[in-house]
Amino acid sequence: MPSHLALLSCLLVLLLSLDKFVLHYLKKRLFSGPRIPTGAPKSRRSMAAAAKWSETAMLVIDMQKDFVDPGMRSPMLVAGGEAVVPAVAEAVAVARQRGIFLVWVVREHDPSGRDVELFRRHHYSAGKGPTVKGLKGAELADGLVIKKGEYKLVKTRFSAFFATHLDSVLKTAGIKNLVIVGVQTPNCIRQTVFDAVALDYEKITVLIDATAAARPEIHLSNIRDMKNIGVETPTLEEWRR
Amino acid sequence: MPSHLALLSCLLVLLLSLDKFVLHYLKKRLFSGPRIPTGAPKSRRSMAAAAKWSETAMLVIDMQKDFVDPGMRSPMLVAGGEAVVPAVAEAVAVARQRGIFLVWVVREHDPSGRDVELFRRHHYSAGKGPTVKGLKGAELADGLVIKKGEYKLVKTRFSAFFATHLDSVLKTAGIKNLVIVGVQTPNCIRQTVFDAVALDYEKITVLIDATAAARPEIHLSNIRDMKNIGVETPTLEEWRR
Amino acid sequence: MPSHLALLSCLLVLLLSLDKFVLHYLKKRLFSGPRIPTGAPKSRRSMAAAAKWSETAMLVIDMQKDFVDPGMRSPMLVAGGEAVVPAVAEAVAVARQRGIFLVWVVREHDPSGRDVELFRRHHYSAGKGPTVKGLKGAELADGLVIKKGEYKLVKTRFSAFFATHLDSVLKTAGIKNLVIVGVQTPNCIRQTVFDAVALDYEKITVLIDATAAARPEIHLSNIRDMKNIGVETPTLEEWRR
Amino acid sequence: MPSHLALLSCLLVLLLSLDKFVLHYLKKRLFSGPRIPTGAPKSRRSMAAAAKWSETAMLVIDMQKDFVDPGMRSPMLVAGGEAVVPAVAEAVAVARQRGIFLVWVVREHDPSGRDVELFRRHHYSAGKGPTVKGLKGAELADGLVIKKGEYKLVKTRFSAFFATHLDSVLKTAGIKNLVIVGVQTPNCIRQTVFDAVALDYEKITVLIDATAAARPEIHLSNIRDMKNIGVETPTLEEWRR
Repeated sequence: MPSHLALLSCLLVLLLSLDKFVLHYLKKRLFSGPRIPTGAPKSRRSMAAAAKWSETAMLVIDMQKDFVDPGMRSPMLVAGGEAVVPAVAEAVAVARQRGIFLVWVVREHDPSGRDVELFRRHHYSAGKGPTVKGLKGAELADGLVIKKGEYKLVKTRFSAFFATHLDSVLKTAGIKNLVIVGVQTPNCIRQTVFDAVALDYEKITVLIDATAAARPEIHLSNIRDMKNIGVETPTLEEWRR
Repeated sequence: MPSHLALLSCLLVLLLSLDKFVLHYLKKRLFSGPRIPTGAPKSRRSMAAAAKWSETAMLVIDMQKDFVDPGMRSPMLVAGGEAVVPAVAEAVAVARQRGIFLVWVVREHDPSGRDVELFRRHHYSAGKGPTVKGLKGAELADGLVIKKGEYKLVKTRFSAFFATHLDSVLKTAGIKNLVIVGVQTPNCIRQTVFDAVALDYEKITVLIDATAAARPEIHLSNIRDMKNIGVETPTLEEWRR
Repeated sequence: MPSHLALLSCLLVLLLSLDKFVLHYLKKRLFSGPRIPTGAPKSRRSMAAAAKWSETAMLVIDMQKDFVDPGMRSPMLVAGGEAVVPAVAEAVAVARQRGIFLVWVVREHDPSGRDVELFRRHHYSAGKGPTVKGLKGAELADGLVIKKGEYKLVKTRFSAFFATHLDSVLKTAGIKNLVIVGVQTPNCIRQTVFDAVALDYEKITVLIDATAAARPEIHLSNIRDMKNIGVETPTLEEWRR
Repeated sequence: MPSHLALLSCLLVLLLSLDKFVLHYLKKRLFSGPRIPTGAPKSRRSMAAAAKWSETAMLVIDMQKDFVDPGMRSPMLVAGGEAVVPAVAEAVAVARQRGIFLVWVVREHDPSGRDVELFRRHHYSAGKGPTVKGLKGAELADGLVIKKGEYKLVKTRFSAFFATHLDSVLKTAGIKNLVIVGVQTPNCIRQTVFDAVALDYEKITVLIDATAAARPEIHLSNIRDMKNIGVETPTLEEWRR
């Protein structure tokens, strides 16, 4: 019995002498390590994953009719937008399954256009214009729905963080990692991503085939630039594994 | 002919000696005054006023049921709030008459309370809480209505400028002066005012009897502090003259 | 021997089943106190304190000659400022002992005054004015020195958070709690405190006798308002216990 | 006498028919134009230009040794940076000649790296790292000097507007138009430009050959994206005409 105590003491002393980096490593390794192989039901892996996803938010950006539905004939239509609606819907489904916090970022403008970027104000007159609050063009694309517990965030500029309280909502929810889907890559996606880097999010992931731009080369050159500052850019399939 | 030249010179000297404020007035008056109604000749004074009001916005802050209507039994009720509703309504009427740009600043929170200040989150549960978006407590007090052409600005913190796009809406509308009414003096009124100073608004006016706090001494000590940084604090009567 | 192994296994299983919060707690509690001086075994209480202080920053605000040294004859002199210099120095000493992250917040303005609040710009001419960068008035009060590892943060408005990167420096350092000292209570102290509330710091403490205003009643009415939004306001003696 | 009156009337009619831009020019020209050299009478065109330039600022971004001087062996070196130093110097000279307000935007970091983006913090240790305040790498490239009346703006993120007071300095100086030079196109140049659009600057010009990236295709794809949101992208030669 004394030897048991001795052993236990040794173990405790050992533990207590570990510096915080080792402990940090252990924590990552044991509780959130994506490399740990699967095993028994409610395996370590799923627990680790649950921990990780509870610190992750998915930002679904500008998936509104005026941006992705050609039928709206909006000047804001993103040529490649309609094609990624199914991928975005699929990404959202995966996020829900994983318990990821979903934030639906949308533009909603005053009918006067007085809260739009200067270079776009000419699109607003007679109470109409792209993504005016309350009009059909501001609605989410068909098939996308905000569920209970998910968050709607209204913005008026490219970046979801510009002049909004999004950072507060995310940080106080313990969010450290972001997954980004939606349109369009060179503007709202990229500006949101660069602001997220500036705001010290630890890991930022852009799903390369659940985001889109007017033309493939625009999409890809922006993906390249985001990669260059440490952003991860998997496909939806790679990410859902 | 020399006398013509003399006259011209006099005129030029006169023009050159106008200070920039007079010139500024002339510019507004002669070349950009879209709001001055044609008709009977206006007095010099009323024309100058029109120019001034076109650069002024009134911020009506937090005049929502949960803040000013005791019947709501909200923990956010401002004791002195109900008493200033008529003065706020009157100030709004004067502002409309003068063509002042009206901004209705309101809190609208998520039912989860995840976008509220930390120290108030305990008020939110089961989808209810103060000024939750869509609930009755978030509505404007009885008698106050947002009219066409006026702007509704949603905030989640004390200051109307904190993490909102209000500064952009005001600055691009040419607004340089602010008139503030609503509740409550030590928090939302004062934080909005101090941020307005930080954001370089030229003239900030708080209507001393169209704003309120829980107790008169709180109201007055805050009025004193605002005066000390250059804020004007007339009564509604003084301001409407 | 097998029983030893069994015991060890149990212990490991126990450890591995700890959820991340428990582990987080353990880490904080046992391993992250790099600032705990070696020597006699520490009590539970002092270890908890060490953990707490590693998540605390002290903001020393505007303790510059133009604000607190009457000899400078600055228009910015805070009447009650000089009297709290010793208390501020003492608070700084305690903070250093506790391993609290020290941030020295100062104003440094362009000689032109072009980065000063509008209502104060008239104080700047001929390359001179209050707390101009490089001039004596911008220096810290006699007796206050920035030591290695401490951070200097330059601001141009009342609040230390307004248009600065302070929030990022603090949040990425793991800071959740703030202790505030300096001048002056109604302006720079209070605006910093209210912004800290808006920015979701968990605990904000203003040392009531290491802060000052022009007159006691101004100081106290602002302390009252800060208390009303959950700010703690101990004396230096109460805080250092 | 009647002829005098006739003359006066003519003059008044003339004045009244001046559009607001001309009047604005007159105001600048006659009452506040410290930068216009006295001497021979100016042509109408050059006077209009003077008005325009008084509302224009040039932002010189990150032209520091660690970014553009290969001799520093900094991990932050921008491959194409050194090549544009002469063009930047030339653009600065033209700006000075035109009386354009010059803002020198630089990074200056704490030796600890605690105010750097997370993904770059590993570059900081032992009091050294890219563009640490006070070290040689933070100095402007050889040949570039800040002159009296010009403004130095310190930033800690890509965008010159992110968590800085730049917008206030520019807007209160009456600046509406920006000309951007420096490095590097996909990060600091582009983020500054997109934030300038979000902040409602009226006209933003990026000098295509006084800006640079690591590789030409990166430079050009970012120029394309900026053009797509209304940014002008002339060469230095086109701009100086």
